[in-house]
Amino acid sequence: MITLTTDFGLRGPYVGEMKAAILRVNPNATLVDVTHSITRHSIVEGSFVMEQVVKYSPEGTVHVGVIDPGVGTERRAVIVEGDQWLVVPDNGLATLPMRHINPRRAWAIDLVRIRSFTGWRISPTFHGRDVFGPAGALLEAGIEPEQFAEEVPLEGLVRLDIEPKRKGDSWLLRVIYIDDFGNVILNLGGYGRPEAVELPDLGLRIPYLDTYGQVEPGELLALPGSHDYLEIAVNQGSAAERLGLRVGDELRVRLV
Amino acid sequence: MITLTTDFGLRGPYVGEMKAAILRVNPNATLVDVTHSITRHSIVEGSFVMEQVVKYSPEGTVHVGVIDPGVGTERRAVIVEGDQWLVVPDNGLATLPMRHINPRRAWAIDLVRIRSFTGWRISPTFHGRDVFGPAGALLEAGIEPEQFAEEVPLEGLVRLDIEPKRKGDSWLLRVIYIDDFGNVILNLGGYGRPEAVELPDLGLRIPYLDTYGQVEPGELLALPGSHDYLEIAVNQGSAAERLGLRVGDELRVRLV
Amino acid sequence: MITLTTDFGLRGPYVGEMKAAILRVNPNATLVDVTHSITRHSIVEGSFVMEQVVKYSPEGTVHVGVIDPGVGTERRAVIVEGDQWLVVPDNGLATLPMRHINPRRAWAIDLVRIRSFTGWRISPTFHGRDVFGPAGALLEAGIEPEQFAEEVPLEGLVRLDIEPKRKGDSWLLRVIYIDDFGNVILNLGGYGRPEAVELPDLGLRIPYLDTYGQVEPGELLALPGSHDYLEIAVNQGSAAERLGLRVGDELRVRLV
Repeated sequence: MITLTTDFGLRGPYVGEMKAAILRVNPNATLVDVTHSITRHSIVEGSFVMEQVVKYSPEGTVHVGVIDPGVGTERRAVIVEGDQWLVVPDNGLATLPMRHINPRRAWAIDLVRIRSFTGWRISPTFHGRDVFGPAGALLEAGIEPEQFAEEVPLEGLVRLDIEPKRKGDSWLLRVIYIDDFGNVILNLGGYGRPEAVELPDLGLRIPYLDTYGQVEPGELLALPGSHDYLEIAVNQGSAAERLGLRVGDELRVRLV
Repeated sequence: MITLTTDFGLRGPYVGEMKAAILRVNPNATLVDVTHSITRHSIVEGSFVMEQVVKYSPEGTVHVGVIDPGVGTERRAVIVEGDQWLVVPDNGLATLPMRHINPRRAWAIDLVRIRSFTGWRISPTFHGRDVFGPAGALLEAGIEPEQFAEEVPLEGLVRLDIEPKRKGDSWLLRVIYIDDFGNVILNLGGYGRPEAVELPDLGLRIPYLDTYGQVEPGELLALPGSHDYLEIAVNQGSAAERLGLRVGDELRVRLV
Repeated sequence: MITLTTDFGLRGPYVGEMKAAILRVNPNATLVDVTHSITRHSIVEGSFVMEQVVKYSPEGTVHVGVIDPGVGTERRAVIVEGDQWLVVPDNGLATLPMRHINPRRAWAIDLVRIRSFTGWRISPTFHGRDVFGPAGALLEAGIEPEQFAEEVPLEGLVRLDIEPKRKGDSWLLRVIYIDDFGNVILNLGGYGRPEAVELPDLGLRIPYLDTYGQVEPGELLALPGSHDYLEIAVNQGSAAERLGLRVGDELRVRLV
């Protein structure tokens, strides 16, 4: 099983080309579309989505993630080996899913050797089809990564600066996802159960509750999200719009 | 084969999480995306879409449908057993697909026992991943429903009020689907071949024809839809907009 | 493996019905969604997308393409047999993918005989579900085309007028694809490496470079696209908007 998470969009030939390339290398692969609608170039959002899928995937699953603004530059194409596999550009995308796979080793894909498996030229702008997809296909077929990659230090991988930061009595948090309703998901998990959440820079104090319906329509609340991260929402409205927040933004938060 | 019909949207991690969970429970399942773009919370639209897919699916297919505004409340998670299987919230979603599977028995999923199969906590807001998906995965693997569900009376399932109603010389019909062009599909099938369709409340008489091109661009017509339901359309235009109709609306119709 | 390229959109039951019908005829088929978001009725765009996927697909792949404005008319439903299979309406959709499969024979599907395999009525408006899908399913199962189709002359297939045309010292080219960024892809490949591209009718001379970043944001450039066709782009902008171009438009181009 190979999962696919990209920012290619659903309209063009890109998703189809990548899938065809994978099945040409490994005709027995089972492909699972996660999403191809990650906000263009949003590594944080892609990392969050891949994390959620990894948490529910069976051991041995190969996750191919292609949010790759640096394609064509010197950024590495890497493999993280653990209870599951990640095949991603070395740009931080692995940061969140890595937390759930007990990573043991990392590999940098060798473009010359991967090409000897596929037989076609590597385009400077489409490594999803020419590098990441085929590498995932080989791993799923049981080919050892040393056949087409060099081991590299696990701790040398690029990581997103996404740990929640303590600042005095507050947290400095980042927005890691905004869903279709405008609910804002922050990078804080395992924080117990506060009574309220204060946003000092916005002069706001928001009740911490269980579900949206516990405040009036149009009012702000904080709640435990379905993904174990702190979430800020507006009942029947958009917290992202109300607070002017986008994925990647930082926010000072006090749990009280 | 497991088909998936939801209102999750294509952007977030939800579809990927549900698929991962299914394949973790049953690695041999073949997943078929029907759509994840049902209008949010539209049980009628979801029921119509599931019906169409059921009509063309092979015997034994498992259809998982998650349009579930009542998640977290006391609504039951149910299975309908027949020539095919439906795994859905008990909110009426099964109404239309049930007509085509010769339903024999119904089951209410036991959240405690389903959890003993998956091994993970059931979120109060995401039964697609934690209940419906895994239940479908077990059925597809040949596990008997009594292993994780209680039999319940078939006639006790919630049904949509979606039978066409006779009112004197007219029908009181409901809009069950509006397609991307604005064509309006009504809950009346097997009605023979009228000459025209009258909408008395709108003072309209519309010719009943075979195809859009038989009227001038911009003009209304009625026709047999490709799904065996009465359809009202505007040639090269939107009948839904012209008549101000939305899914679920009622409309008085006279066939003449 | 059966790939699916259509303009059905992702919202309705159509994609699900076609997939169900395929798996009912051939339960062992592996389905690969390429895209269902081809611009409605755009045969040129569909042909371009199918071409890209064919280039990377394994031998024997069956490609079902349904961009079919003529459904219900006398246009034929055809099969092109080569290193891979194409199953499409005979409206030019096969033109570009055919270049990469060494086509050997063509077949016109017999609606009466295909119906004897499926067992259900053929709707006048949905041949994707009733004709093309099932025909692809049969081919993938190893059923010979003579079982449900008549051989027809390969050279009699409808072709798009899509060869680049020489006009004196210029080319008369067609826009065959516009991507989500507004980059314009023209029907000219294998043209060497010019210094610049002139668009005489617009009084423009555009540098020919390798990547977008080599001009200032907002400026035009030409470049070798990732699909081996000439591409015109605006760095961080939309060339299609700037030049007022749509898929199918013609453009006079001079390579200098």
